[in-house]
Amino acid sequence: MRAYNFCAGPAALPTAVLEKAQAEMLDWQGKGLSIMEMSHRSADYVAVAEKAEADLRKLMNIPENYKVLFLQGGASLQFSAIPLNLLGKNNKADYIHTGIWSEKALKEAKRYGDINVIEAGTKTAEGKLAITEQSTWNLSDDAAYVHYADNETIGGLQFAHIPETDKPLVCDFSSSILSAPIDVTKFGLIYAGAQKNIGPAGLTLVIIREDLLDQAKPEIPSILKYADQAKNGSMVNTPSTYAWYLSGLVFEWLLEQGGVDAIYKANLAKAELLYGYIDSSDFYANPIAKENRSMMNVPFTLAKPELEKQFLKEAEENHLLNLAGHRSVGGMRASIYNAVPLEGVQALVKFMDEFAKRNA
Amino acid sequence: MRAYNFCAGPAALPTAVLEKAQAEMLDWQGKGLSIMEMSHRSADYVAVAEKAEADLRKLMNIPENYKVLFLQGGASLQFSAIPLNLLGKNNKADYIHTGIWSEKALKEAKRYGDINVIEAGTKTAEGKLAITEQSTWNLSDDAAYVHYADNETIGGLQFAHIPETDKPLVCDFSSSILSAPIDVTKFGLIYAGAQKNIGPAGLTLVIIREDLLDQAKPEIPSILKYADQAKNGSMVNTPSTYAWYLSGLVFEWLLEQGGVDAIYKANLAKAELLYGYIDSSDFYANPIAKENRSMMNVPFTLAKPELEKQFLKEAEENHLLNLAGHRSVGGMRASIYNAVPLEGVQALVKFMDEFAKRNA
Repeated sequence: MRAYNFCAGPAALPTAVLEKAQAEMLDWQGKGLSIMEMSHRSADYVAVAEKAEADLRKLMNIPENYKVLFLQGGASLQFSAIPLNLLGKNNKADYIHTGIWSEKALKEAKRYGDINVIEAGTKTAEGKLAITEQSTWNLSDDAAYVHYADNETIGGLQFAHIPETDKPLVCDFSSSILSAPIDVTKFGLIYAGAQKNIGPAGLTLVIIREDLLDQAKPEIPSILKYADQAKNGSMVNTPSTYAWYLSGLVFEWLLEQGGVDAIYKANLAKAELLYGYIDSSDFYANPIAKENRSMMNVPFTLAKPELEKQFLKEAEENHLLNLAGHRSVGGMRASIYNAVPLEGVQALVKFMDEFAKRNA
Repeated sequence: MRAYNFCAGPAALPTAVLEKAQAEMLDWQGKGLSIMEMSHRSADYVAVAEKAEADLRKLMNIPENYKVLFLQGGASLQFSAIPLNLLGKNNKADYIHTGIWSEKALKEAKRYGDINVIEAGTKTAEGKLAITEQSTWNLSDDAAYVHYADNETIGGLQFAHIPETDKPLVCDFSSSILSAPIDVTKFGLIYAGAQKNIGPAGLTLVIIREDLLDQAKPEIPSILKYADQAKNGSMVNTPSTYAWYLSGLVFEWLLEQGGVDAIYKANLAKAELLYGYIDSSDFYANPIAKENRSMMNVPFTLAKPELEKQFLKEAEENHLLNLAGHRSVGGMRASIYNAVPLEGVQALVKFMDEFAKRNA
């Protein structure tokens, strides 16, 4: 019995992917061993790793002049690796601040260079959180790159447009990668922790334009050098082989669903259903301006906050799991990543409606 | 059908562990989701993580004044993290050089401080590789620590004794941790990539004495700070949750086998059988002096090197996998980690003997 899992991360994976992994756990394709017991340099494993990259390139339409790296350490290690690799001689970058994750990124970057912070969070006249117009931003002329987080997982706040800049654009897509089409050519570097829309925790994707590869600061730990990892197929040392394999199964599953365009349509339908219900209700509210609502993470509050524990308890009894908001903001949050089916959101809305009626 | 897997890493895991993981892949303990779909901060997951640490402490008899960290990035990221965390004001350390892995560690350390390299590899009168006596080493008076690699996985060379020093002793135990009893109190820091005797690749263990925690260099990436990871239960950011869980299953399995003392006896029997056969044979040879032979990684050569490909092909037909030596040294290598049963080594010796007789 699989429940509906609204966890923000590590998050739900497609049941079909877990079933495949389960079936070949002890004996991968008749070879007599698990894929996680194989050398990362064996022909069998390298084929699995390369297939995963090829499928991701197909899904995201990644141009030839971009490298795809399968790394360890999470997006948080990239908060250090990005300035250490990309600040270059200017030693300056612009960081757009819209929430907790972009703040973590800019705090770490400040340890390595001159960081110009653009405060881009605001409140509308109705008191909703929103992202300011780019025309109001004070971008630098001499930044080595411009950094932002597409989707603030905790706040539930997402960019409606890609910022315009002639500098390399660097984006944390941890909680929105593969949920909607991304024009990769607009970016110098895209990065994402795997544990939302890619696969299990312990893997981090970096997609980087080749001309940015080789300008690391001398104090960078060798393993973090993009140029070295690119030259070595992300195998300077042993990568997170099982997480890479599982991510490959997720990419295959996404292709079977019809690719990113198809999953985007499904995600839109899920988000419209949930936000639509919240907007129609007097009992629930979402704190984000419509244009900047996250398609992946839907925070909401109850008109009677004292019922939050009861709400979570009953939701769990209805096999609707992990709906508590992040400990730093409270309230509720439903993360509706690619692997959460429309039926899950329908069941959630049905439960929310019944709960509201019983407790109005 | 499970073959015998002599891979040096990622390496064989106990079949019982994989069966348990397989059984609960889609629904962990009736909760309706996989353990890899759970928040690392959920009560269920934290209990799994804490149980793994408690079991490891039991297995290795780790004193209270040591912290156990479950990190990402492999031993190779620790090659940077160790000097960045431990060089302190002296900015000097001794590194004992016995092979390829200790060389990688010292090369990375040289990027951060003044490294005194002790060349401790030698050849005996019979031309066998050995480790020199400590009395011949030129250790520094003012080193912040002394680093060595207990077992050189590629060379198949292992220390017979723990070096004596009044400085904090730092050891890469990647390929020998949990294979034999270790007196943890002799060490300032023990580290190990998981993919040999612990669990799947993507997890790295660090066991560190508390007084060494808080002296990191300012340029260290925040995620690599031992003090922060210790304060946060290795969850400064999302850890490699599934690898941590699987490692916990391996620790449970080890306790069921009777703990490290029991597995040590089993490992001794395996190593004695294989080395004993090689020594009794004119067709096979091992290049290491007896005192420094690795209990985990057994390299061997064929009297007729032109038969290596044939040997590997026939071994595979006999379900004996991954016996090729490391690409940098050639020859053969049988890695006989904890999860390789005595029956596997018996089958290997039987095959080697038949192959030798057919090709003498």
